Amino acid sequence: MRAAVLHAQRDLRIETVALPAMGPNDVEVRIEAGGICGSDLHYYFDGGFGAIRIREPLVLGHEISGTVVRAGAEVRRVQPGQRVAVNPSLACGRCRYCQEGKQIHCLDGRFYGSAMRMPHVQGGFREALVCNEAQAVPVSAATTAAQAAFGEPFAVCLHAVRRAGSLLGKRVLITGSGPIGALTAVAARLAGAVEIVITDVAEAPLAAARRMGADAAINVTDPAALSRYAADKGYFDVVFEASGNGKALLGALPVVRPMGSVVIIGIGEEVPIPISVPVVKEIELRGTFRFHDEFALSVELISAGKVDLMPLVSATIPLSDAREAFELAADRSRAMKVQLAFG
Amino acid sequence: MRAAVLHAQRDLRIETVALPAMGPNDVEVRIEAGGICGSDLHYYFDGGFGAIRIREPLVLGHEISGTVVRAGAEVRRVQPGQRVAVNPSLACGRCRYCQEGKQIHCLDGRFYGSAMRMPHVQGGFREALVCNEAQAVPVSAATTAAQAAFGEPFAVCLHAVRRAGSLLGKRVLITGSGPIGALTAVAARLAGAVEIVITDVAEAPLAAARRMGADAAINVTDPAALSRYAADKGYFDVVFEASGNGKALLGALPVVRPMGSVVIIGIGEEVPIPISVPVVKEIELRGTFRFHDEFALSVELISAGKVDLMPLVSATIPLSDAREAFELAADRSRAMKVQLAFG
Amino acid sequence: MRAAVLHAQRDLRIETVALPAMGPNDVEVRIEAGGICGSDLHYYFDGGFGAIRIREPLVLGHEISGTVVRAGAEVRRVQPGQRVAVNPSLACGRCRYCQEGKQIHCLDGRFYGSAMRMPHVQGGFREALVCNEAQAVPVSAATTAAQAAFGEPFAVCLHAVRRAGSLLGKRVLITGSGPIGALTAVAARLAGAVEIVITDVAEAPLAAARRMGADAAINVTDPAALSRYAADKGYFDVVFEASGNGKALLGALPVVRPMGSVVIIGIGEEVPIPISVPVVKEIELRGTFRFHDEFALSVELISAGKVDLMPLVSATIPLSDAREAFELAADRSRAMKVQLAFG
Amino acid sequence: MRAAVLHAQRDLRIETVALPAMGPNDVEVRIEAGGICGSDLHYYFDGGFGAIRIREPLVLGHEISGTVVRAGAEVRRVQPGQRVAVNPSLACGRCRYCQEGKQIHCLDGRFYGSAMRMPHVQGGFREALVCNEAQAVPVSAATTAAQAAFGEPFAVCLHAVRRAGSLLGKRVLITGSGPIGALTAVAARLAGAVEIVITDVAEAPLAAARRMGADAAINVTDPAALSRYAADKGYFDVVFEASGNGKALLGALPVVRPMGSVVIIGIGEEVPIPISVPVVKEIELRGTFRFHDEFALSVELISAGKVDLMPLVSATIPLSDAREAFELAADRSRAMKVQLAFG
Repeated sequence: MRAAVLHAQRDLRIETVALPAMGPNDVEVRIEAGGICGSDLHYYFDGGFGAIRIREPLVLGHEISGTVVRAGAEVRRVQPGQRVAVNPSLACGRCRYCQEGKQIHCLDGRFYGSAMRMPHVQGGFREALVCNEAQAVPVSAATTAAQAAFGEPFAVCLHAVRRAGSLLGKRVLITGSGPIGALTAVAARLAGAVEIVITDVAEAPLAAARRMGADAAINVTDPAALSRYAADKGYFDVVFEASGNGKALLGALPVVRPMGSVVIIGIGEEVPIPISVPVVKEIELRGTFRFHDEFALSVELISAGKVDLMPLVSATIPLSDAREAFELAADRSRAMKVQLAFG
Repeated sequence: MRAAVLHAQRDLRIETVALPAMGPNDVEVRIEAGGICGSDLHYYFDGGFGAIRIREPLVLGHEISGTVVRAGAEVRRVQPGQRVAVNPSLACGRCRYCQEGKQIHCLDGRFYGSAMRMPHVQGGFREALVCNEAQAVPVSAATTAAQAAFGEPFAVCLHAVRRAGSLLGKRVLITGSGPIGALTAVAARLAGAVEIVITDVAEAPLAAARRMGADAAINVTDPAALSRYAADKGYFDVVFEASGNGKALLGALPVVRPMGSVVIIGIGEEVPIPISVPVVKEIELRGTFRFHDEFALSVELISAGKVDLMPLVSATIPLSDAREAFELAADRSRAMKVQLAFG
Repeated sequence: MRAAVLHAQRDLRIETVALPAMGPNDVEVRIEAGGICGSDLHYYFDGGFGAIRIREPLVLGHEISGTVVRAGAEVRRVQPGQRVAVNPSLACGRCRYCQEGKQIHCLDGRFYGSAMRMPHVQGGFREALVCNEAQAVPVSAATTAAQAAFGEPFAVCLHAVRRAGSLLGKRVLITGSGPIGALTAVAARLAGAVEIVITDVAEAPLAAARRMGADAAINVTDPAALSRYAADKGYFDVVFEASGNGKALLGALPVVRPMGSVVIIGIGEEVPIPISVPVVKEIELRGTFRFHDEFALSVELISAGKVDLMPLVSATIPLSDAREAFELAADRSRAMKVQLAFG
Repeated sequence: MRAAVLHAQRDLRIETVALPAMGPNDVEVRIEAGGICGSDLHYYFDGGFGAIRIREPLVLGHEISGTVVRAGAEVRRVQPGQRVAVNPSLACGRCRYCQEGKQIHCLDGRFYGSAMRMPHVQGGFREALVCNEAQAVPVSAATTAAQAAFGEPFAVCLHAVRRAGSLLGKRVLITGSGPIGALTAVAARLAGAVEIVITDVAEAPLAAARRMGADAAINVTDPAALSRYAADKGYFDVVFEASGNGKALLGALPVVRPMGSVVIIGIGEEVPIPISVPVVKEIELRGTFRFHDEFALSVELISAGKVDLMPLVSATIPLSDAREAFELAADRSRAMKVQLAFG
């Protein structure tokens, strides 16, 4: 079975890997589609991000879908032959955070294709995978593998939107118009946002966000581009920071209304925040990380056709050409979401 | 009538000022006590803070109390002879924020002794003052002017605590053990915090905080002093940042639990926040600014003897010696709260 | 100018009434469309509801729209010639509740076509009306008067949905499939509900709710119709009670999940609630009444074409035939929303 | 080993029962004190309450404390010789509700001395008990068994108070001044309530509540006793219904402020609620049931001496006289909390 294994920065190899043994609650999934995420790109181009570095060979990938081909003896929720979105996250269920319903912060959690733990948790860009049945979430017969592979990134955005509280009637700014920004626009619309403005410094992603339903897409290469929203202490009820760029976060502060929220999705470096601004306007800066039960919701929404995320797919490239796929995915003028095709 | 007028950095003069005309809803208050606040010190020693600078002579002071000596024709809620705490804040009541119940963010608000607007809003370190009756909040007969002058700073801390949501059973860290930190400890206890740890880099304020009820007071001159609280992703449910020092804020991030809150009271300069920490732990950084209905609550609690804040008073100094009072107030080894006495 | 004036139970007359004098902040609106609401029907058929009874002649109507024909000297937000939805509610802006942002509970509020106060507040089923400019909310050029007349009832439902907190990904039951139930389905979908089930005891309203987007519409004439949802302590996160029928409320309790909410829109009589059920499942029963800033949101959504409410209109009948319109509106087998046409 | 076994209504026998086998995570606790709760009284006097009836012999009791005498091989958190409060509740940790952090609603939960399941879960009025180590919560050396036995009922009240959201500065009404009402007053004060009024129809419990810190205790035998609080749509932000009496709940509705909450602790029969009142005032009626992590908090507060609950103990009676203890506990003119003493 072949997999895309990263050995070091820019050293991605298509190699044969073994399939782990299967337990009674496990299923084997033949992987069909896998989306390349920003963190995959960070591993590939930079060898990691922040303190998290590749220290041993790592199969990348956590936006994956496929078809169940084998099920352990005690598997009840899914059957061979069903197409599934694979949840790359598995919490222990027993630690204090799991018992508080905060599985995202599990003290012993595992997440595919991540170098956070040692040994690393191997990822999903592989032709077959063994996972717990709880991770294999069936989709409807009409759902393609490419659609199902959006289960994960859309779950991230649904969770980010949930972190903002009710968006019904709210005015929303999204900074950063990459795949996460654009999917956040979809999620915010779904949650009732009445006005969605998205920003970026590149035109192609802005055009993509418009196609995904943003009411306005603004190029903030000109730093004054948002100044019209700064009158009377600010305009937006909620900002989603999806660029990972400190300037975007800083640029959002003057345009958030007093007592508004800035939900931070993008993981960037240090940002020099002028503390007086969030203090005097009583703004909240709220981190959001991954997802938990939003994975099932994401799959349900995709599976029922309540959201159409396929316009984000810029290219589908076979596993054998994974390096080319990674290079394309990093080119914001040409690509939003690049998916790998398997087998 | 004499007042403490700041003309420029360190140029504080005791001068005669006129009493403004009184409207039908106004009262005249003979001022009896006035606490010196950190922002008064910033005006005095630095000529302002951040972008806010003294641009014309300014009567300082906003922690004040006294006795009503005259009431306008339509005044109903207070009578001559009553001792009152004076609320230095007056919102317009009509702007969008006032109509949303967010008077703190009033587009036309006035706050005593503040150089934020031009002309400046003159403050309360004066022998007599005219204010709207709504600003003059009566205290019980047993309440001294010195106690009543805590109405304002304790309101700031009650509001900060409210911004944290319910504290019942929560573990709380307060960074910065000046008067605001110590009053926040009192407010957090009142709100049901089960454990309150306070930090500072000076011993005298830590000792004062212990006297005000903190369960532990830790000197963080040693940067590892809080490391025991960092296990398992953090210990504190809520942090109140009351030092205005960026290091304190940064030091708090490792010891906040996932999904915990950092309520920021202290207005400091830029703080280089490693964004990945609040993101990955889904922490909230939440500004808090001044107060609104907490002023009445603060006065009610003081007036009913439900809190005893007098241990914070380090010295009471007559108006004529205001400069000496300001110098003392700035010496953290000798002073927590310094109050001026009038008339 | 003609108006539909109710003199007593079933005594509705089309009479000439005078136009009140106009103040500098007022506008005169030529009314074009007016929806008949359940409370109008209660006045007409029953002479009132609960303790609220008609005690003097009352112009009915509060779901109204028209075109501004004249504007007072200080009017800034709207101009003659603009079509507007008229907000029937005007809060005083000064009482304690208004200053807390709870204008719905204003101690001196006025609501068109209501017998709650004496003298009654006259309503909007009249050819022309004078109101404060703040009540006249402009719609887009493409918006018809019939669409604009949904501003009010849809605002009721948006407020009800807001009272439920975030609905993103929630499973929702709506009991009662009249106009309010059906509009609540639209609002709940807009707010991100992932599954919406609606119930009634009549087939025609259920069919209408299906057309408005409910995922399932269930006839609960059979009391066991919801029993499949009672397993494992309940299924729905949120119930909206929109029937005003106590049986509907009681029938909802077994199918709400633990810690779920029942938002009560319908005003019925006494309901014998088995208190142990909300206690043991820790359910919340939460009243919702009218709306405040949701009126502007409702008009914005309608005006921008983000919701299409016109399928609810069963008939449009001229003012001169108002009695016939009221009779039709009360016949659930034939009518959802009946609108009056003016002039 | 002896236990108080209820065979049928009023048929309570002191009998010898066997100690269950101990698992590796279990501890054996020698019981020292046990408080008699209202539900114990319902079993004893009425054979149950609502649909829950005694169907086989049941050891009563769930407010218990004692000393660990033996620990299983894998026990880590507690040692023989330690005094503990025993948590009578054990959730499965695996069902959907447990994984959402809603252990109170566990689909497979066990609660001591309860006839809800069949076979019944035997209770704690016995000389020795085997429980999971997680249920045995150590207290400080200074804590008596009598104090520790308040761990459970005070946890109920802490949970009720948490269900109300932040109480800081709130005005609170408690209806019903039995042990739960009085403990709720303590919990509400701890959580920052600024004014606590408690009601009852008997003088002795009212006097007890005054001793526990209520600001006012009002006899509502006169139905007009609360009318002063009904002006301007109501006075109290939060009501805790702790009487189980429908009249108390109905009497609270006129005195709750708009958008206020009524937290219902008392499990009574059907209450005919005039639905228009919670609707028009947008009141929330919110059930509260038992507790989860509040047990540890309760024990911590008692153990640290931050609350003194002993004034509630009216009598301590040996197990051998359990029937007499039950008769006394039911006499509201003589008893608040009656505790059994063991061994």
